[in-house]
Amino acid sequence: MIEKIRIAIAGYGNLGRGTEAAIAQNPDMELTGVYTRRDPASVQTLNGSVAVRHLDDIDQYKNEIDVLVLCGGSKNDLPEQGPALAARFNTVDSYDTHARIPQYFDAVDAAARSGGNVALISVGWDPGLFSLNRLFGETVLPKGDTYTFWGKGLSQGHSDAVRRVPGVKAAVQYTVPSIDAIEQVRSGLRPTLTTRQKHTRECFVVLAEGADAEQVREAIVTMPDYFADYDTTVNFISEETLRREHSAMPHGGFVIRSGESGDGDKQVIEYSLTLESNPAFTSSVLVAYARAVYRLSRAGETGARTVFDIAPGLLSPRSPAELRRDLL
Amino acid sequence: MIEKIRIAIAGYGNLGRGTEAAIAQNPDMELTGVYTRRDPASVQTLNGSVAVRHLDDIDQYKNEIDVLVLCGGSKNDLPEQGPALAARFNTVDSYDTHARIPQYFDAVDAAARSGGNVALISVGWDPGLFSLNRLFGETVLPKGDTYTFWGKGLSQGHSDAVRRVPGVKAAVQYTVPSIDAIEQVRSGLRPTLTTRQKHTRECFVVLAEGADAEQVREAIVTMPDYFADYDTTVNFISEETLRREHSAMPHGGFVIRSGESGDGDKQVIEYSLTLESNPAFTSSVLVAYARAVYRLSRAGETGARTVFDIAPGLLSPRSPAELRRDLL
Repeated sequence: MIEKIRIAIAGYGNLGRGTEAAIAQNPDMELTGVYTRRDPASVQTLNGSVAVRHLDDIDQYKNEIDVLVLCGGSKNDLPEQGPALAARFNTVDSYDTHARIPQYFDAVDAAARSGGNVALISVGWDPGLFSLNRLFGETVLPKGDTYTFWGKGLSQGHSDAVRRVPGVKAAVQYTVPSIDAIEQVRSGLRPTLTTRQKHTRECFVVLAEGADAEQVREAIVTMPDYFADYDTTVNFISEETLRREHSAMPHGGFVIRSGESGDGDKQVIEYSLTLESNPAFTSSVLVAYARAVYRLSRAGETGARTVFDIAPGLLSPRSPAELRRDLL
Repeated sequence: MIEKIRIAIAGYGNLGRGTEAAIAQNPDMELTGVYTRRDPASVQTLNGSVAVRHLDDIDQYKNEIDVLVLCGGSKNDLPEQGPALAARFNTVDSYDTHARIPQYFDAVDAAARSGGNVALISVGWDPGLFSLNRLFGETVLPKGDTYTFWGKGLSQGHSDAVRRVPGVKAAVQYTVPSIDAIEQVRSGLRPTLTTRQKHTRECFVVLAEGADAEQVREAIVTMPDYFADYDTTVNFISEETLRREHSAMPHGGFVIRSGESGDGDKQVIEYSLTLESNPAFTSSVLVAYARAVYRLSRAGETGARTVFDIAPGLLSPRSPAELRRDLL
């Protein structure tokens, strides 16, 4: 029997649950433990039989972890956990604070090297699969423009921003790409698009007792950074409707490279995702890349990596010869 | 000044011309020679100043070739040229006879190892970018189905088959994907599609003097392997119309992975190409991958490779730190 890749999960929210479910879809992997900062007894996993332990105790289980999937958030968890855990384990994470990726990479790289581990950062779909498509687009068609559109999808950050507005009891926000803008890009026109032309924003808000709807709407649509540069629609709904119609986490988007090859021919490359569950899909990407981390570590590599550094064949449980025969 | 990557071209048809044009779009590369089996004096390149030499003399110019782009055909040229040239040069080619890729890989691999070279085979869009998307699809969503649709595009092989029918003076054939089938796949239904349901075929035929149209049509639509399993339309046109409306070489297609993540959520990944010129785009992909070949060779690697083995970052002239900052 071939030995399975032993995966552990650090952090058990939506991403941790998705990771547990994704591991179960990959017969060459097994989940050896879930590590949490909560009371382990309070954590209910999908498969009740998996060991749940406190994150503080993880070093005791080093011998049963080939790759640790970091399922914490980019804002508060990963800046600290990423380097700390990469010093002790091979890791893969979905760090997505774009502006701080260079610093995060350096911190994780130093830690991973010191511990002799491989740490793959910023894996998922954006950053991740979308990043790869931005790269392929500009390398294959150096003369051209790259467009990224997001949605239609629930934005966690924007939903949180709406919830912080006084008078809002609960809310969700969807980012909606402009079909018209996408069609222009697909046509090969290479338009210059403003922020407002690329996406609209739709909010579904449950008002707090006694709150003034118009005041809340105004506070949302004028909010700098988050909404002021967009056409934003605010819909007021009941708590019951919010729960019934807006509890899923769909997302997706498009990366389009529109360019011309050396002879002036127009060439358009389009990549798109339509996701019923954003965290479940991100988890699926993390788990496929965990396989690559395992292999790089076995090959003696150390240090931080991104999806740009990973040969795609390393993601597959199949042999290079099989991949050439069946997929090339 | 940074030294440029010195590229040479073996074979100067549509692909060779496209490769010359693509190299001109990449400032870190220079074209040092075009090698042909024809009389070099008869070959007119896009940039008249590039050296055109006979392929038999190529070994004399070994010192000015970092990577040789093989622009011959898969049927008659590459089975012999691929291994022969990989023994003497770093190479990249677009070998696309799917069924024979394993044997071709082995032959090129042995030759490249013996010569201490890197040889990257089957690069382009299919095989190539489409292959990568089939791989990403099944590794990220192991539970699911992958669908490849081609077109709308000119098929060289099918056009040749039509031209061989008695009574046909000239012809082109377009492969047309079924929009209805694509929509079913996009919806997440995961339909089982027959050959006939996925694509239709459209022929534009110039009849030879005195040929019987109905007889020609019947011979085309019943041709085994090529047309019998498809719904095929045959349009008879004048030579003038053929030249005016059907001399471009558009192509493209779709790779769609429809699957579900571990918790049962439907997730759809779609990759599509809309190409005004099939050979020009293939050349653009070859040239981007030539950069990766150069780097692997400089790093001391030898042997045959496919796109599955190439870390995407190697395609870019930009540094890993820049890629992380700007594209991740």
